[in-house]
Amino acid sequence: MSLAESIGDSAIERQMETLGRQARAAARALAQASTAAKNAALTAAAKAIRDDAPAILAANARDMAAARDLSNAMVDRLKLDEKRIDAMAKGLDEIAALPDPVGDVIARWTQPNGLVINRVRVPLGVIGIIYESRPNVTADAGALCLKSGNAAILRGGSESFHSSTAIHAALVKGLTVAGLPAAAIQLMPTRDRAAVGALLRAEGLVDIIVPRGGKSLIERVQREARVPVIAHLDGNCHVYVDGKADLAMAREIVANAKLRRTGVCGAAETLLVDRACAATHLKALVEDLLAKGCEVRGDAPTQAVDARVKPATAADWDTEYLDAIIAVKVVDGVGAAIEHIERHGSHHTEAIVTDDAAVAERFLGEIDSAILLHNASTQFADGGEFGMGAEIGISTGRLHARGPVGVEQLTTYKYVVRGAGQVRP
Amino acid sequence: MSLAESIGDSAIERQMETLGRQARAAARALAQASTAAKNAALTAAAKAIRDDAPAILAANARDMAAARDLSNAMVDRLKLDEKRIDAMAKGLDEIAALPDPVGDVIARWTQPNGLVINRVRVPLGVIGIIYESRPNVTADAGALCLKSGNAAILRGGSESFHSSTAIHAALVKGLTVAGLPAAAIQLMPTRDRAAVGALLRAEGLVDIIVPRGGKSLIERVQREARVPVIAHLDGNCHVYVDGKADLAMAREIVANAKLRRTGVCGAAETLLVDRACAATHLKALVEDLLAKGCEVRGDAPTQAVDARVKPATAADWDTEYLDAIIAVKVVDGVGAAIEHIERHGSHHTEAIVTDDAAVAERFLGEIDSAILLHNASTQFADGGEFGMGAEIGISTGRLHARGPVGVEQLTTYKYVVRGAGQVRP
Repeated sequence: MSLAESIGDSAIERQMETLGRQARAAARALAQASTAAKNAALTAAAKAIRDDAPAILAANARDMAAARDLSNAMVDRLKLDEKRIDAMAKGLDEIAALPDPVGDVIARWTQPNGLVINRVRVPLGVIGIIYESRPNVTADAGALCLKSGNAAILRGGSESFHSSTAIHAALVKGLTVAGLPAAAIQLMPTRDRAAVGALLRAEGLVDIIVPRGGKSLIERVQREARVPVIAHLDGNCHVYVDGKADLAMAREIVANAKLRRTGVCGAAETLLVDRACAATHLKALVEDLLAKGCEVRGDAPTQAVDARVKPATAADWDTEYLDAIIAVKVVDGVGAAIEHIERHGSHHTEAIVTDDAAVAERFLGEIDSAILLHNASTQFADGGEFGMGAEIGISTGRLHARGPVGVEQLTTYKYVVRGAGQVRP
Repeated sequence: MSLAESIGDSAIERQMETLGRQARAAARALAQASTAAKNAALTAAAKAIRDDAPAILAANARDMAAARDLSNAMVDRLKLDEKRIDAMAKGLDEIAALPDPVGDVIARWTQPNGLVINRVRVPLGVIGIIYESRPNVTADAGALCLKSGNAAILRGGSESFHSSTAIHAALVKGLTVAGLPAAAIQLMPTRDRAAVGALLRAEGLVDIIVPRGGKSLIERVQREARVPVIAHLDGNCHVYVDGKADLAMAREIVANAKLRRTGVCGAAETLLVDRACAATHLKALVEDLLAKGCEVRGDAPTQAVDARVKPATAADWDTEYLDAIIAVKVVDGVGAAIEHIERHGSHHTEAIVTDDAAVAERFLGEIDSAILLHNASTQFADGGEFGMGAEIGISTGRLHARGPVGVEQLTTYKYVVRGAGQVRP
């Protein structure tokens, strides 16, 4: 199906078709590119970002000048300085240092008829990335796609358009130095919001969409996309403190899971405490949180331990606060904890604290979340902390990739079969 | 989002919601079911199919009596006899004998901070299967989903409704014998075509749709589905006979790839012959095919070798005949063969015949198809021939699964992380 057929005829759609065809051609070249060439492009792009820092800062100043209507949080995400530019360049160098997944033989076996079957890792093809105000995503996402042999079509937030354009220019310098096609990383050259829709409907031109942003972006993507999506939905994460939990360990893990950084998707949002240890553990856990400035919304037993605990409402169990607020509930053992998490959780990340190995195994085995931890903080839900290097997001979907999406998860495979003249009987 | 919101309010949609909720509950139980229980259900279902053969044949007779408007090919696919029923039962026994993928630790590593990270295979969840006239798909697809720990919602062709209902009853007997929930394998209890649409839009209730059928079904699924799809599109497969091909091997492979069975997706549809060996190889290859009753549609050089060769038109290069017809073209070496295949192929399966290892590696490396073979017939494109056991289809998509989709491809993974009190700095 030609794109013109599928989305009608307008300037943006024609532009999308051009970007898509260029990306497809670049993807063919990238799939064959050597690791050395890809790394050379990444290293040269890192250098170009450092060299071009004044131009990038000037572009960012234009975006900031136009940003008067944005919230403080958005302005903070938008703003670049020397330190953030250096971190971006460092990120490219780190991606260059990652192993190249392309060409890996994932599995190999020989059939009784002598056919040797190899499952070989290959790039996905063309990846569309839709993101919001942070201009550094231009560099991070472009670099992850390049390392994994994929062509990228980037659609940044309109409020960071000049910043992203300047960063993209540095990436293209890197590609050119390494002799790779400039269209390997393209930035949609328009601030028009219709461009997002064109990208979401670019079936046949784009193989997968990765949205990075808030709830309203993700919901639009889920609603409109005709291209498959690797999406990162809510992170309504739980810590369950079991009756057999060591109190000191539980206090450390709960405080860290909730408060180390409250705005990350792996931050805990609900604490479940086993009734079996409520008498000994609950007060200490709650007072730690209160002492660190966390608002606590609890059920009746939790309200009973400290007057500062506010009553939790039904909505609290389903809320991803991304803030210094936690919901706390007393439950009847691991079975009730599992039921609560399966009903209210978002299948992202959950932790249990217990010294009882059998209870831990039940929690790890029965809960259907991307990441389950025993005696560790939910804040480890991160590609870097998993040793997978940089990530483009954390998938809460079930297909293709679950959990951190790094360079390996941006690949697929093909079968390479070697024979000696075999025909099928 | 509740289903009622997403698809409006009608009897079929309410039925879909009920089926979906039952399937979700069954999926939770199946994810925890032992291999022994799942195998017991499969073995008992095989026995029930053999025991119920008279009832299944009577149901099939009702479908056949109503099938007067169907094509001969469809009637042949619809018809059951003792032999086909026995093959169905055997298929279930074979699936029982396959290794259980659920619970496999796919990867395990330890981080410097002592966290032990395990990537563990888990079922996908709820799988919707939409198929056409072959009633045996009821047994095959239901069994593959069960073995991989998934709940299945089956939507068979309306023309095979009574046959599928009788086969489904035998599967439910197997589930009951093994103490597994009857809703692990559900058949949509209606012939209404609107039920297909309800299944395709059942976001949140169904995790993945696998369509099995002809082009018009696949196209409807691709157009309407809001649930992710593992689809099997065209198999426009190629054999390229290189200048360095052994003629005897090439003759065997070409004849087998085209004619062993013409109706399978791995059947070759186009033969490309290197100009470097056209003088010695082309006539023999073409005359073999003609002698075996195959229609040959060729370019000018191919027409020149035998008067029976018909002229190929532009459409021939893009056609999946699924019949004893082949398109033949002379090309300038492996580079031109790769270009032709990338332009006209469907990314399913392609084979090269050559004694030149470097040429073979270029073909295997540069072509972006699910399966690439060196010196072997394209008819090996089959899960059983790959040693993967029964398959639910061959994916031509790039995400999640590519090539044969067997029990392993019907799973996803989760991360199980074991610590000793680690918190993130």
